[in-house]
Amino acid sequence: MRMRNKPWAETYLREHVDIVDLDCDHKQQVAMWFEKKQPIHIEIGSGMGKYITTLAAQNPDINYIAIERDKNVMIRVLDKVLEHNLKNIKLLCNDAVVLTDYFLPHEINRIYLNFSDPWPKTRHAKRRLTNHRFLEIYKQILERDGEIHFKTDNRGLYAYSLESMSQFGMYFTKINLNLHQEDEGDNIPTEYEHKFSEKGSRIYRMEAKFHHNFEHKMNKD
Amino acid sequence: MRMRNKPWAETYLREHVDIVDLDCDHKQQVAMWFEKKQPIHIEIGSGMGKYITTLAAQNPDINYIAIERDKNVMIRVLDKVLEHNLKNIKLLCNDAVVLTDYFLPHEINRIYLNFSDPWPKTRHAKRRLTNHRFLEIYKQILERDGEIHFKTDNRGLYAYSLESMSQFGMYFTKINLNLHQEDEGDNIPTEYEHKFSEKGSRIYRMEAKFHHNFEHKMNKD
Repeated sequence: MRMRNKPWAETYLREHVDIVDLDCDHKQQVAMWFEKKQPIHIEIGSGMGKYITTLAAQNPDINYIAIERDKNVMIRVLDKVLEHNLKNIKLLCNDAVVLTDYFLPHEINRIYLNFSDPWPKTRHAKRRLTNHRFLEIYKQILERDGEIHFKTDNRGLYAYSLESMSQFGMYFTKINLNLHQEDEGDNIPTEYEHKFSEKGSRIYRMEAKFHHNFEHKMNKD
Repeated sequence: MRMRNKPWAETYLREHVDIVDLDCDHKQQVAMWFEKKQPIHIEIGSGMGKYITTLAAQNPDINYIAIERDKNVMIRVLDKVLEHNLKNIKLLCNDAVVLTDYFLPHEINRIYLNFSDPWPKTRHAKRRLTNHRFLEIYKQILERDGEIHFKTDNRGLYAYSLESMSQFGMYFTKINLNLHQEDEGDNIPTEYEHKFSEKGSRIYRMEAKFHHNFEHKMNKD
């Protein structure tokens, strides 16, 4: 998600260092930043944060972390955290490639990827958040039985992700090929999802886990 | 595919024992039945056989086997084999559960599953041709690097198959979530596919392989 540059964004975020980490201040100590010790779920690419702040309000017994590298977008997440006075959510302003700097091995209990940038050109495939270089990172930080929950309206990104994740040695515990027709009432639409499903776009979803009795060969990339 | 019972079907098939095996006559010796020793591709649930007979005509350097348990349907495949005088195709009239009776381990180079019965009720899941009990059979008869090519218009069966196959330790080398929009000109539509895509049904397709550096645990079933 790209937003117009707001020069005051960084100043605003720095006023809330109790909620926002801009400089990797909580390296390997993110869990201790929260009031309560409880499971940690993260969303990578939180956009404006409707999804993760809704989850945080609904589930006080889970700690949430919104990860978004664009400060101009992250301010919208901070707005929501402050507005609802949410205590179980923190914001990391950084790129997904450095996640292992923040988290201990297998410290994270669930990862959400919602409407990630599809990077449709083949030469940009390595930037897609389900490329093997990112799956390597998720496997390191996610608990062994942890799940990745993924949603997109982009058919190409969904197909790529099914290929990439299965080739890496992941398996799917839930597949929705038309979420809004199959949803059992517990779907939380993101801002983006609401806008595009109104236009008739089909929403794809999956839940995935890592096979662990399996050694991935990186040359399959 | 269900067809009206034709009492003469078995008689007609038995007149062509050079092409049709009704009684497992070629147990463990199917390869020797063909004129030429060349790769073997099989289709499980061939229906009326347009797909596999088209392939057989296009690829004389591959041996094909159509597997269809319904004799009333198999006669339509035989019609096509005779009409085009195809020498590189044989027909097995039997159920997929007994495939290991016919084939040696890893003797088959490719398996096609086209528009298999979706068995939509959960209590019938074990009958779906991508249930683990069938995947076990395919893994035994398919060469280590062999592929399963799967097409369906049934969203539920496709989602189930992505889950079942990945949980079993398979991976996807090609995913098409809307084949008729993505096809590069080499798709051969089956009789059924032609009929249903005309009505606007989306066709799903995948190519899948088995991970081999991996031991599947049957309790994931």
